[in-house]
Amino acid sequence: MANTKEDKANSSNRKRRAKPKKSLQRYYDSEHGIRNHWWPGLFSYELKEDDVKGITIAGERIGLRRANGKVYGFRDQCVHRGVRLSQQPTCLTKKTVSCWYHGFTYNLKDGKLCDIVASSNDPLIGRTGIRTFPVKEYCGIIFVFVGDEDFKTPPLTDDLPFKLPKNEPLRAPCIQDKDALALGIHRECIGDWRLAAESGGDPGHIMIHRNSALVLALDIALSLGEPVSGVDSMLIRDEKWPKGVTKYFDNIEPVMHRDDLNIHTYGKTPPYGLRVSLCLPAILFVENWPQPGMTQYEWYVPVKKGYHQYWQVLVKNCPDEMAKEDFTMRYKNAWEDLALKDGFNDDDIMAREAQEDFYNNRNGWDEEQLFSMDQFVVEYRKMVHKHARGVQPPPDKL
Amino acid sequence: MANTKEDKANSSNRKRRAKPKKSLQRYYDSEHGIRNHWWPGLFSYELKEDDVKGITIAGERIGLRRANGKVYGFRDQCVHRGVRLSQQPTCLTKKTVSCWYHGFTYNLKDGKLCDIVASSNDPLIGRTGIRTFPVKEYCGIIFVFVGDEDFKTPPLTDDLPFKLPKNEPLRAPCIQDKDALALGIHRECIGDWRLAAESGGDPGHIMIHRNSALVLALDIALSLGEPVSGVDSMLIRDEKWPKGVTKYFDNIEPVMHRDDLNIHTYGKTPPYGLRVSLCLPAILFVENWPQPGMTQYEWYVPVKKGYHQYWQVLVKNCPDEMAKEDFTMRYKNAWEDLALKDGFNDDDIMAREAQEDFYNNRNGWDEEQLFSMDQFVVEYRKMVHKHARGVQPPPDKL
Amino acid sequence: MANTKEDKANSSNRKRRAKPKKSLQRYYDSEHGIRNHWWPGLFSYELKEDDVKGITIAGERIGLRRANGKVYGFRDQCVHRGVRLSQQPTCLTKKTVSCWYHGFTYNLKDGKLCDIVASSNDPLIGRTGIRTFPVKEYCGIIFVFVGDEDFKTPPLTDDLPFKLPKNEPLRAPCIQDKDALALGIHRECIGDWRLAAESGGDPGHIMIHRNSALVLALDIALSLGEPVSGVDSMLIRDEKWPKGVTKYFDNIEPVMHRDDLNIHTYGKTPPYGLRVSLCLPAILFVENWPQPGMTQYEWYVPVKKGYHQYWQVLVKNCPDEMAKEDFTMRYKNAWEDLALKDGFNDDDIMAREAQEDFYNNRNGWDEEQLFSMDQFVVEYRKMVHKHARGVQPPPDKL
Repeated sequence: MANTKEDKANSSNRKRRAKPKKSLQRYYDSEHGIRNHWWPGLFSYELKEDDVKGITIAGERIGLRRANGKVYGFRDQCVHRGVRLSQQPTCLTKKTVSCWYHGFTYNLKDGKLCDIVASSNDPLIGRTGIRTFPVKEYCGIIFVFVGDEDFKTPPLTDDLPFKLPKNEPLRAPCIQDKDALALGIHRECIGDWRLAAESGGDPGHIMIHRNSALVLALDIALSLGEPVSGVDSMLIRDEKWPKGVTKYFDNIEPVMHRDDLNIHTYGKTPPYGLRVSLCLPAILFVENWPQPGMTQYEWYVPVKKGYHQYWQVLVKNCPDEMAKEDFTMRYKNAWEDLALKDGFNDDDIMAREAQEDFYNNRNGWDEEQLFSMDQFVVEYRKMVHKHARGVQPPPDKL
Repeated sequence: MANTKEDKANSSNRKRRAKPKKSLQRYYDSEHGIRNHWWPGLFSYELKEDDVKGITIAGERIGLRRANGKVYGFRDQCVHRGVRLSQQPTCLTKKTVSCWYHGFTYNLKDGKLCDIVASSNDPLIGRTGIRTFPVKEYCGIIFVFVGDEDFKTPPLTDDLPFKLPKNEPLRAPCIQDKDALALGIHRECIGDWRLAAESGGDPGHIMIHRNSALVLALDIALSLGEPVSGVDSMLIRDEKWPKGVTKYFDNIEPVMHRDDLNIHTYGKTPPYGLRVSLCLPAILFVENWPQPGMTQYEWYVPVKKGYHQYWQVLVKNCPDEMAKEDFTMRYKNAWEDLALKDGFNDDDIMAREAQEDFYNNRNGWDEEQLFSMDQFVVEYRKMVHKHARGVQPPPDKL
Repeated sequence: MANTKEDKANSSNRKRRAKPKKSLQRYYDSEHGIRNHWWPGLFSYELKEDDVKGITIAGERIGLRRANGKVYGFRDQCVHRGVRLSQQPTCLTKKTVSCWYHGFTYNLKDGKLCDIVASSNDPLIGRTGIRTFPVKEYCGIIFVFVGDEDFKTPPLTDDLPFKLPKNEPLRAPCIQDKDALALGIHRECIGDWRLAAESGGDPGHIMIHRNSALVLALDIALSLGEPVSGVDSMLIRDEKWPKGVTKYFDNIEPVMHRDDLNIHTYGKTPPYGLRVSLCLPAILFVENWPQPGMTQYEWYVPVKKGYHQYWQVLVKNCPDEMAKEDFTMRYKNAWEDLALKDGFNDDDIMAREAQEDFYNNRNGWDEEQLFSMDQFVVEYRKMVHKHARGVQPPPDKL
């Protein structure tokens, strides 16, 4: 008869690798997100004059309201009974937002409680309020600074990927260009925001895309991997903001066949100028993708434990109205499906979901075994650990 | 580089108000319900002769059985394998209820195990049993006393709202009147039973009802709030049972417009004789509502954490059959929809659900900020804290 | 005013029977399953050449792959990012299985990482791998040994019910017979695997089957119970493997009527040669059921806490092709529905589900009150406690 002791011994004999986690402790602790960064909240067109909409970033419930064209951000939780103001926008003036429940009314500028519909002389008026969030509209996207109220807000461009000099030979469009047009989608997906960022930037997962419509239609020669570990082709930029790590794909000879393993890819056109960067807070920046002369941005915005808002944006330089119309037409009719949805990126969503159980329920962060091509991802981890401006606490501590 | 210490500091710097919770500790502890009180279980018409039905009150699984007209209450959980007797009523005599699984058979009167179908001479027979619950049928409702077996059962009327003297000028019908007819519905709703009671009694939430069909059809002049805090119009009755707090609405000048906040109500008919009481255990009692000469009762029966059974009952004095038929016809064709469902009360259900996340997941009980009109609700909290006959333990301690 | 102390006292006064749990401690601890046993994984026909399929037994994710006819078992979790290899079988050779994500490639024989598609010279290759599981195909079923890698694998037949001598008078077919044909189904069901085994073997639950199509169509005289406790008719076999407990039903006079309790059964044909055994690891073995000359096997395979895979298999001796065709036709057109599904066994599934809340959320293992006919089940509990080869740890310790 085996006894309980034996059972325990059997169980503990199964090998546990004690991982030197502490070196990246802040990264491992940031399951709820990182703090004091700019994140995209909504596209500008999603918030019309007098709209009030609620979003959740890193567990923070944030209300966004447009009044006289300007967008205001505030804690989307009435101080009274904690309901979301955005649930039933009601009783609005251009200077205030009110709760639909008892009419607690807050100044948009500073969040102070300035009136209560049900009790206009209430002693609580003027003595409390909701916090506000810095908001900046940029290139058709409403960005929100999610952080401490007393934190000195950095410029938004510190949290956007590098703007390269115009004379850089392989330069692709970027969102800071004056003639940039950014078109895209966002959607809530299953998956820790970190796993989303890692799997987006991961240079070794090309296998899952090899039969995708985008790759086949454009006949792109995607490499199954690399003969060498690729550290040479990596550039780490963490001296000033923005901070990120970049990988160059131009000097790689694509591996198209592994006949011994019964797998191959199809395309004939090597990618031109393709560079992949993973930047703080959690932005993928793919230059000259899905075609040379375009750039794909992705944000992996923490929502709540195990979920992120997946932002996918294509950028092109459009110097005039005709160019804008042309890109808009092509985006709507081709690129949105072909590049951002089931023609390519939906495979990434599947791969993220596939990792959730391991990392959430089965000690994945301890037990994962990384290989050489993960060095890119590890550099991003280090960057978050060292340079994130704060680690987000769990929702009940907000 | 921000370090972990800084992160923690940032987090704890966000203000936490230390609330003197202890003053109402029993109230805050009663998320599973309060104990040793009478609660409505089923309408009489829902339990026909020989029926066995199962309900859950405050986590207690209770079986109700009608035999020879009389209703018996018992723990709806077989001592053997813990299944609910009510799941498949089977093998019934007028004196017993049996489990459908192995035929464990219990006396209705005292709950003793008196037979087992599968083993009629079993040594367990006569040595165990299920507890019984006191039951009382009153005005078409089956009430159950949910409490300790050795607790001296108080009269049901101790747990029903006050019966006022007949000569009271604004007196409305009440369930204790001999000619009372009570008609209504009950349904399980999301929401802590306390939040349901509080939001039902809350005098400051009228905003959410201002465009409701009931208010518009009857042209009721509902006030957006009050200029003063309304303490004057409140009566606290906690010297003898029943205990509760009452608010009078007749001396209030309705506030129909807040043009500066872009909100107004529509009606022209001030309510007459309207009084709202919140009584122990968790009963709303609204006299002269939805019309003068009628009364609305609501019970918020704890079911399990985060859920309550919402009882809504209209009472009218009906001295003869014709009056009963008339009220029944009007109830079915008008009042049920107009007063109890989407014409009015469904808005309350929405508002309760909206509070759940804050109170259940985000420290709502600590962080709520009450205003003057909440004094009514605070008085009810005090009453539960002081006078509830017990606090219900969690289901696994039952 | 009742205070908190009183409340607690009330609560603890409600009787708690302190159960001498320790005597069967390993049984009570095995909610995740028992370890180092053979369990059925798939029917042979469910895994065709080159298929890769994933199953879960006792929280272990197991991949099964057929190559050149042989079935291999391995941990279905890539060492890299923890995804299941079986999610998208891809890039296969007859000697390897690869992960669909980055092409981590493992030898089928020993599980060693022998290649990575994305990085064919990676330093990780040869230094890690996934564990393998012993697999045996037997009578059309793929069995997997779920246990420690260093455990000396016992013969499969140690974990199959007893094979009786041919001259035994009431001998029914068994899976070890050379001419046995086994046909059946498996499905994931709600319920702890132990409760499933206990309720399958339970001799006292016949009430729930009394109106079933199988019993009525075959006019079987099922007994409502027994006048005596039935210990006499029980045989405990735990000296050598296989180990189990058997109950004989032939010497029982069926109790067809309990008029005092208003219940009766219908059949006229007493069962012939009916014997019920419950064997390790968790196998029900019902000889001469659903008809004399047939045997029903059931396995209750632990999947994860609160769920089991319910295997139901009918076995008949079929000495030639015509007999096989005949049994297959009868199985498909009659026995599958009549014996295994809604004609009989679906009632057992209902009864298992009915117990889950009590045992999972309400201290069922402490509070259950067993009766004389449960002695059979208690003997099985003892056997698991004493002879199970290990207790399965929770999934996050695997």
